Amino acid sequence: MYSRRDFLSRVSLGAGLLSLPSLAFAQHTEKKLGIALVGLGYYSEHLLAPALQQTSRCVLAGIVTGTPAKKDKWKAQFAIPDKNCYTYETFDQIADNKDIDIVYVVLPNAMHHEFVIRAAKAGKHVICEKPMSVSVKEAEEMIAACKKANVKFSIGYRMHFEPHTIEVMRIAKAKEMGAVKFVENAMGFKIGDPTQWRLKKSLAGGGAMMDVGIYCIQGARYGTGEEPISVTAQEFKTDPVKFKEVDETIFWQLEFPSGAVSSSVTSYASHSERLFVSAEQGWIELRPAFGYGPIKGKTNKGEMNFPHTNHQALQLDDFALCVQENRESSVSGEEGLKDMKIIEAIYKAVATGKKVKLS
Amino acid sequence: MYSRRDFLSRVSLGAGLLSLPSLAFAQHTEKKLGIALVGLGYYSEHLLAPALQQTSRCVLAGIVTGTPAKKDKWKAQFAIPDKNCYTYETFDQIADNKDIDIVYVVLPNAMHHEFVIRAAKAGKHVICEKPMSVSVKEAEEMIAACKKANVKFSIGYRMHFEPHTIEVMRIAKAKEMGAVKFVENAMGFKIGDPTQWRLKKSLAGGGAMMDVGIYCIQGARYGTGEEPISVTAQEFKTDPVKFKEVDETIFWQLEFPSGAVSSSVTSYASHSERLFVSAEQGWIELRPAFGYGPIKGKTNKGEMNFPHTNHQALQLDDFALCVQENRESSVSGEEGLKDMKIIEAIYKAVATGKKVKLS
Repeated sequence: MYSRRDFLSRVSLGAGLLSLPSLAFAQHTEKKLGIALVGLGYYSEHLLAPALQQTSRCVLAGIVTGTPAKKDKWKAQFAIPDKNCYTYETFDQIADNKDIDIVYVVLPNAMHHEFVIRAAKAGKHVICEKPMSVSVKEAEEMIAACKKANVKFSIGYRMHFEPHTIEVMRIAKAKEMGAVKFVENAMGFKIGDPTQWRLKKSLAGGGAMMDVGIYCIQGARYGTGEEPISVTAQEFKTDPVKFKEVDETIFWQLEFPSGAVSSSVTSYASHSERLFVSAEQGWIELRPAFGYGPIKGKTNKGEMNFPHTNHQALQLDDFALCVQENRESSVSGEEGLKDMKIIEAIYKAVATGKKVKLS
Repeated sequence: MYSRRDFLSRVSLGAGLLSLPSLAFAQHTEKKLGIALVGLGYYSEHLLAPALQQTSRCVLAGIVTGTPAKKDKWKAQFAIPDKNCYTYETFDQIADNKDIDIVYVVLPNAMHHEFVIRAAKAGKHVICEKPMSVSVKEAEEMIAACKKANVKFSIGYRMHFEPHTIEVMRIAKAKEMGAVKFVENAMGFKIGDPTQWRLKKSLAGGGAMMDVGIYCIQGARYGTGEEPISVTAQEFKTDPVKFKEVDETIFWQLEFPSGAVSSSVTSYASHSERLFVSAEQGWIELRPAFGYGPIKGKTNKGEMNFPHTNHQALQLDDFALCVQENRESSVSGEEGLKDMKIIEAIYKAVATGKKVKLS
């Protein structure tokens, strides 16, 4: 039912919107935008740095780290000049560095707020990893800071640039399978090292919900093509020692204006990863749905078979194009704020045992 | 990881327990047991009658129907003597019919109670389709009636005889993948004819929950290998006209003593069919999970690849063996009663919006 050619012909029609063809058709006459990564943990090292090598509009131009050994390693590996290396203390001097156009904040969740605002004040465009913050209040302040500084702001929602996911969004919006009746989705894994920052509330803000549950919130939103109006939620813990500070497993249910509903699972206890959209006249299933790929998809009519893409490279090039064309990202701070409002409502629904309305 | 040979060698070890080898190794020296089907709707015509042709211990010996045209058709097709054909009014005379050993009640849910009790009073062993009744009280009365009449009683839980499902049960019980952390499952379909009995509360007792949600209750129970201790639930309707009397879509969540939890979806609005068991060291996924087959299964280690079986034939032969060996079925009335208690708790949780404890 789907072929690579179908996919490419479809996305080339929507090139401006999705920027998916950027890898294939990028204009190499424009100056590449310099990216500085703030925080050189696993995601920066193993995902973003390799992805940057595959972008056509971006170049890894700077790093911000508190670890001298990491600085030396990255400098050597990526030929980054010493003047483009910062610590968290010297970070604000990045304002004077013309090599850096975009700052990508890849720190623990609770540090996003501070560093996004400092980046904006330094006059740099900003990408912030998900979840964008640990509260709605922080998210609103980050958006305001970027607006005030007149810089573009985007959240690291790489799935928005993944072909199977884009097809799910398209089918839902077009009601191509009739009205969506419900979405089931889940994202969970068995978390390792009990000393990591993800298990500390002061750094992570929350547990599985903040870290990977957010994929399911996104999946329910783009799987229905709507914004939720209410939420119920339940929290469970099988290991109250390991998960003393943050949530281990949360189930939640969303209601949407059309009557569509979603049922989601997130967990640090064990594996699950799937998006299932059930509509009047058909269904779509992505499994795996949210990992770094390849994403696999099928519908009631057969396999989807879109090509594997580097999600992060597409995301980075899309944001670079937004900066170059002076327009907002489709995964803007406002998009991140929507999820933060839902996350706060989920935690409130857990705490009260009651349905929480979303405004 | 799994092969047909592995499977056969495993079940042959547990032959007495599962009776799965009955098709292969049945003792044809014993008299086949005569089955009378009560209610000649779709399930009797398209599933049970063909399955009976594949059993080694059973024979379709009688019918009970209120429709003369059906009687004529079945009589001719299956060479059933006139004396073995009953109406709902003459049904009790079955007590005097030595051709009939087992009565299989395949009527609308609300009629199960009456006809199971009448069958028991007629001294016949009884199989009752799921859900066994429309209330806990009815279920208890049905069990008591069968005990009093000293007849065997079983519920039509065919999945208990399906190889992939048996493997799920085994892995959960043996904790072969470590502790089960959560189960996700779903069973839903878009219901057709708006005039059918399934949409009338007086005949069905409830909607999707009663009809197919029960597969998810079973799946959560055998997927964890435990009995639930509490439930939360949410009901949703996108078509309040079609679903004026019964539930369209229900989500529910169960807690189990070990801390394992389950999240389930049932719906008459659109398709979903899957069982997913997530454990510390692995996962199992059946999709499709509850249909007439072939069931497909995989684990984190690969495809399961058990042979397709006729679920109903295995179920029928197992019950016949229970009767012949004078022992209780593994899918007894008590097994059905457990699900009825959970269904009542789910409806109560929907009505109150609160967590309901299960005793």
